[in-house]
This record gives sequence, structure tokens and C-alpha cells, in this order.
Amino acid sequence: MPSFTCTASSCHPIWCSSAGKGGPDLNKQRLPNVEINGGSKRYWAWSSETLSHVSGVATLSSATSVAQNEYIAKQQLRQNIPTKKQFVDSHRQGVIIEGGVGYRQTVVIRSYEVGPDKTATVESILNLLQETALNHVWMSGLLSNGFGATHGMMKNNLIWVVSRMHVKVDHYPIWGEVVEIDTWVGASGKNGMRRDWLIRGQASGIVFAKATSTWVMMNQQTRRLSKMPKEVRAELAPWFIEKKAIQEDDPEKIVKLDNKATYVNSDLKPKRGDLDMNHHVNNVKYVGWMLETIPEDFLETHHLSSIILEYRRECGSSDIVQSLCQPDDDGILTDGIQHDNQVTNLISGFPLASEILRGNGLLGSVSLMPLRYTHLLQLNGESQKEEILRGRTTWKKKIISLSFQPN
Amino acid sequence: MPSFTCTASSCHPIWCSSAGKGGPDLNKQRLPNVEINGGSKRYWAWSSETLSHVSGVATLSSATSVAQNEYIAKQQLRQNIPTKKQFVDSHRQGVIIEGGVGYRQTVVIRSYEVGPDKTATVESILNLLQETALNHVWMSGLLSNGFGATHGMMKNNLIWVVSRMHVKVDHYPIWGEVVEIDTWVGASGKNGMRRDWLIRGQASGIVFAKATSTWVMMNQQTRRLSKMPKEVRAELAPWFIEKKAIQEDDPEKIVKLDNKATYVNSDLKPKRGDLDMNHHVNNVKYVGWMLETIPEDFLETHHLSSIILEYRRECGSSDIVQSLCQPDDDGILTDGIQHDNQVTNLISGFPLASEILRGNGLLGSVSLMPLRYTHLLQLNGESQKEEILRGRTTWKKKIISLSFQPN
Repeated sequence: MPSFTCTASSCHPIWCSSAGKGGPDLNKQRLPNVEINGGSKRYWAWSSETLSHVSGVATLSSATSVAQNEYIAKQQLRQNIPTKKQFVDSHRQGVIIEGGVGYRQTVVIRSYEVGPDKTATVESILNLLQETALNHVWMSGLLSNGFGATHGMMKNNLIWVVSRMHVKVDHYPIWGEVVEIDTWVGASGKNGMRRDWLIRGQASGIVFAKATSTWVMMNQQTRRLSKMPKEVRAELAPWFIEKKAIQEDDPEKIVKLDNKATYVNSDLKPKRGDLDMNHHVNNVKYVGWMLETIPEDFLETHHLSSIILEYRRECGSSDIVQSLCQPDDDGILTDGIQHDNQVTNLISGFPLASEILRGNGLLGSVSLMPLRYTHLLQLNGESQKEEILRGRTTWKKKIISLSFQPN
Repeated sequence: MPSFTCTASSCHPIWCSSAGKGGPDLNKQRLPNVEINGGSKRYWAWSSETLSHVSGVATLSSATSVAQNEYIAKQQLRQNIPTKKQFVDSHRQGVIIEGGVGYRQTVVIRSYEVGPDKTATVESILNLLQETALNHVWMSGLLSNGFGATHGMMKNNLIWVVSRMHVKVDHYPIWGEVVEIDTWVGASGKNGMRRDWLIRGQASGIVFAKATSTWVMMNQQTRRLSKMPKEVRAELAPWFIEKKAIQEDDPEKIVKLDNKATYVNSDLKPKRGDLDMNHHVNNVKYVGWMLETIPEDFLETHHLSSIILEYRRECGSSDIVQSLCQPDDDGILTDGIQHDNQVTNLISGFPLASEILRGNGLLGSVSLMPLRYTHLLQLNGESQKEEILRGRTTWKKKIISLSFQPN
């Protein structure tokens, strides 16, 4: 039975933007064998919760440590993380696929996961990608009591950090719809890993969305990127497959916006509910900040069809964030034809009832011009503005669906 | 086979606070047979999406209407709402219980549903209550293509409005834990309905949370509260049972706060992601606004153990909301003993690892004093401030769990 490792998709950032926290400057080190997309020098890191607990325990009294160990042991009992590879998980509605290395989960789109148009929100889709990635590791039998690190990684004090994510949505699932989410992993250079996803309607088999992401490893203490140790490679390699959800032969570089950007939202503050288990701002919140900066009337009349995120650094609960956003005029039409197959996809896009009710009718709501925006999230510090992420979103106008046949 | 009706737990507010929208003043009418908790004259309304669509269609051209009908028909195919009562739903992991009238759903707590302490957030629990309520109606075979209204209600142009909700949480489920959520309905006076819930750990059988809510009917067009028509009573009555999740013989009245409240948060604005299918602010967002007004250090060291919400009116996307919050000094201890069994519950409460790491240790984190807060959300209008909801929250200090045995 091959052993397994994997990524968590959105959990545990381990470093924070606050200068006072004293993490080493990652600009000072480069690993020639680590595949870095878009020239990123910094990454968003998600650690194992267990690791951060263990590192904290050294400073505690032994009585507290005993109580904490007991608490962790009880948590593990309640979580019931498998210690052996599982092929079926009836609670999660998950099965191992792809000859034993991929994972498929059946999910019903819930009432609170949809927006005003009854379709799943982008944030809900990102949440489901995270959930299925973690459940893939869960099934492997090698998940430590954290968020995606294997036993080999724990032993080497390593955590996963994501450097890039690309999600393409052709159709949005609607409330009550049953979808299947497949996920699998592959090699990315000598030291990285790729995780892909495919979301399909269960009844129709129609592909709703595809996604790919790139991950590297980082030492939790030193905050330095790490080569993949042999024992971790031995865990990972048997699970790697070549299959790709999205072909990206030559990913476009995302330019860095400056303060001349068309839309700027400068006073974004994390709230209590935006923080994840490491008291850092959750991945999905970043996307919310990106999208909120786009004008409301555009969001009401367009569907997001593609989002690319290049992570640079994380932000904590006390940071103030600035979201910049710039429409790409040159993205019209050419993007749809050359890169994203938008023209085909548009014909089968889903309309909003509100679009119809507004009286736009069939002709009024038909448009074949996707639009693109470039995004930048950065820390709104007094002295300097450090990049959190660069992003690119591609949109299509909501149109009446006449060709889509769900059954 | 008995026919069925039910409530949606958090979906479709149909009126809005904006004076310009011209809804009739609900203060002008009272229904003597409608059970009104806490003297509320206004309610938060959740309508069937189909109803609002149908009412809009009359103004459209026939071509658009045909396209819309086709779209709705396709949505229905994709949603696959049952037309007959179902006893088992394998996708939703739901079964009919309580002699054929209750519903139980098995749910795994997802990675993004937990907060920094790895336990489910209050917001996630409220979302799951909504989801299971809707799935209960889904199973009945009588759900119209909307959010909880039966065919009889649709025919009479009626929607459900919730007047009150009370949720008690003894233990918070953790990431990956499998829970069972039971829900059922009962009569509330001659014209109202009660919906209750019970959340248990599947492995342990331990009760995590209980909840109850009260609902009445409203005419969607006139915005007036309605008696329950005979045909709707005929649908509903066979599903009513007497069982109560929470005994509330004499619910306390929640006083209305004024501007002298200790904590005031005056500039709360809904964001795109906070809006539900009717472009109104989602129920759960209200709770977020209530809790955000409590000081951060209190939230970090306390668990919410009870929340009572009395809905007065809804707010829309353009409203600005004020959240007021006042600690109840007289709620200490007596509330725990007399009303909520807090003293017993506290012993088995879950600690936060951060509490331990902070060096408070066993003794430092033990406290048996629950605290209560009174809340008010109101529209922050220029001329007057209209109530959205009154609330009460009860809290217990996070302590080390030594007595809780999950297995």
C-alpha cells in the first residue's frame, strides 16, 4: 500500500505580515529546484495545527502540557482520523478513484452556499476545493492531526505553502444540485506538488469547474523554503499522476498594479469570523476582498469564469489591507477565444432571473465579451506596502441559457 | 400519506427597511390568534423564490416569460426536488424519523466551518440548522420551488416569517467530527408553527446543541400576517408533534437597548456576499454583527452557550445598521443555575489551545461564571432608528475539559 501525502487547500498560514513577529526575510533565500510560478519569492503557508501546538508546548509547565496532551488525544478520538488508507468514506461520501490515488466526493450544494441568483458563490466553490483536498489526505491514512501534512513532513517540521491557484468555472451549480468533485496530485518540478480538481454535475456529467494549484514545502521554524526530503518524496511519489485539469503551457505573468489602479479599496480589516485556526485571515476572504473592489453593477451582470491567484505573503488579524483592481481592456473577446474557450461556454451560460425581470430579455442579455481584471492585495502599512497576492479574474456576461441540457 | 409543510430556517426576507419601497406598515394590523413572542409586531420574512418570480412575470413580454419558464423548468430538473415523500436521501445523508414526521441528517463538520479553536462557529451551526430545516421540507415531497413554502401556501400566496429563535450550545463539534441533526415541527398557537432541532455527536450520542424557533404566515403581496388557511393546516397538522427541544415555560422579555448601551457599532454595511437569494441580508450575518460588537478579548476567552433572537424587521443591501450591546451584570451565575444548567455544562466545556498556550493553565482558565449580553440591531436611519432584532447571548468561560468523554 503506497503511503501518501498531500496539501491542505486553505488552512494554516504560518507567517504573518507583522514586522514585529521576526520571521526571516524569504527574499534572502532561493531554491533553484523549487518551481516558482510568476517569479514569486514569498508564499502563503498553511501549517499543521499539531506542529504549532507542539512548538508551543516547550514553553509550558508540565501540568498544562499533560492537560493539553489529554485534550489533543480527545480531539483525535472525536475526529477519528484514519490510520490506514480508506477506499470509501460513507460520511463524507468519498471514494478513492484514479487507480487508487485520486479522490471523489459527492456534495449537495447547500442553501447557504448560494448567492442571490441561487447559484453557488465563488467563495463556496473555493471552500469545497479546500474541503475535498483535506478529505483526500484524510482518506490516505497518513494525515497528521493537522491540515494536510504527512507524518514524514511532521518529522521534518515541514508544512505546505501554496504559491498559485487557478480556478475556471464554466457553469455554476445551483441550490440542491448534486455535484462530484474529483481531486488528485502530481509532481511540480523536483520539489513541488500540483493539486488539481474537477467539479461535475452528477446527473449530467457536465463539467462545472476545473482548478489547479502549486505547492512547495517550508520549514516551520526557519520559515525557509525546503527541498523535498527523500522520505517525504517516498510518501508522495506513489500518489502522483500526470493528468492535468487545466493545460497551462505558458501561464501569463500578472503585472503588479500601483496606486493608479482604477479601483482602490484601502481600509479592509479582517473580522473575527475571517480568521482560521491559526488566527490568520482565511484564503477565501482574500477572494472576497478582490471581488468587492469590482463595481457592484458589473458583479450583478457578470459571472466570474476564471480566477488566478499568486500568493506572496499572508496577513494577520491586526493588518489593514488594500485591494486594487484594474480592468484589462485588451482582455475583451480575445481572451474568450484564445485562452478560455469562452465563446463556446458563453452560449451555455446560466442567466439570472433578475436579468430577465429587469426586462433585458433574450437579446438584451446576450453578449459575448468576457472581461478581465487584474488585482493586487497589499498590506496598507505606513512605511511600505507589501504584496499579499496578485490576481487575475475573467468574467462573462450573464445570458439566457437555451442550449444547456442538464439531463 | 400525510402531506407536509414546514419552514425554511433562513432564506428569503421579503420586505425591506427602505421607506421608499412602499410596503404597508405592519404596525397597523394585529392578528389575535397569531402567537407573538415578546410582543413583536414585525417579523423577518422568508419567501418562496418562485413566488417572487411569478409575481414579476406579469410585467414581462411573453418571449421573456417563455424563456424564464424554460429556465425555471431546467433549474427544477437540476435540483430534482422530490414530488413524493422520501424516507431516505443518500446524497443528503437524511432519513425520516419520529414515526414518519421528523428528519435526521448526518453531517461532517467541514474544515472551513470551524474557527481558530478548531470548533464549529456559531454561524456554521446556524447555517446547518437552516440546511436541515430545508432538507426536511425537501424530503416531504411538497416543497415548492422555493424556500420552505408548501403547495397550499403557494396557492394562497403565503410565506413563512420567523419571529423568534433560541439556540443553546453545550458543546461545540470539532473539525472532522460526525454529528446528527434532528429537526421536527409542532403547533404554536392556532396560526403559528414551532421548529426544533437537536444536534448530537454521532459516536458519543452527547447532545451538542438544541434549538427552537417560532414561525407565522404572511401574505406576500399585502405584507400582512395571515391566519393559517384550512388547506394549509391540513398539510401541516399531520407533521406536528408535541416534543420540545427546549422547555421555555416563561421566556424572559428582552429589553430594548438605547444609545447608552456600553458597546455601539454604528456603521455596519452589508457586503455582496452577505446577501441571500432575495438580495437581503442573511440571517447569519445579523448574528455576526451582534457578536462583533462584543469586545475581542471576551470572545477569545468565552464560548457562546445560548443565543435568543427576536426578529422585528429585515434590512436590505443599502441599509446601514447599528449594533448595540450591553453586558447584564445580573446574569452572572444565577442564569447558569436557574435557566441554562450552565454549572453542569461548564465542567465539560472545551478549552482553547490558545488559552493553554497563553500560560493560564488549569486554574487560570477555570471560571464558573457565565455572562449575558443584551443586543439590539437597528437601522441607522437619519430620521428614526427602526428595530431589526433584539437579542440575548449567554456565555461561559473556556475551561479545561477533564470530564468530557467523547467515546
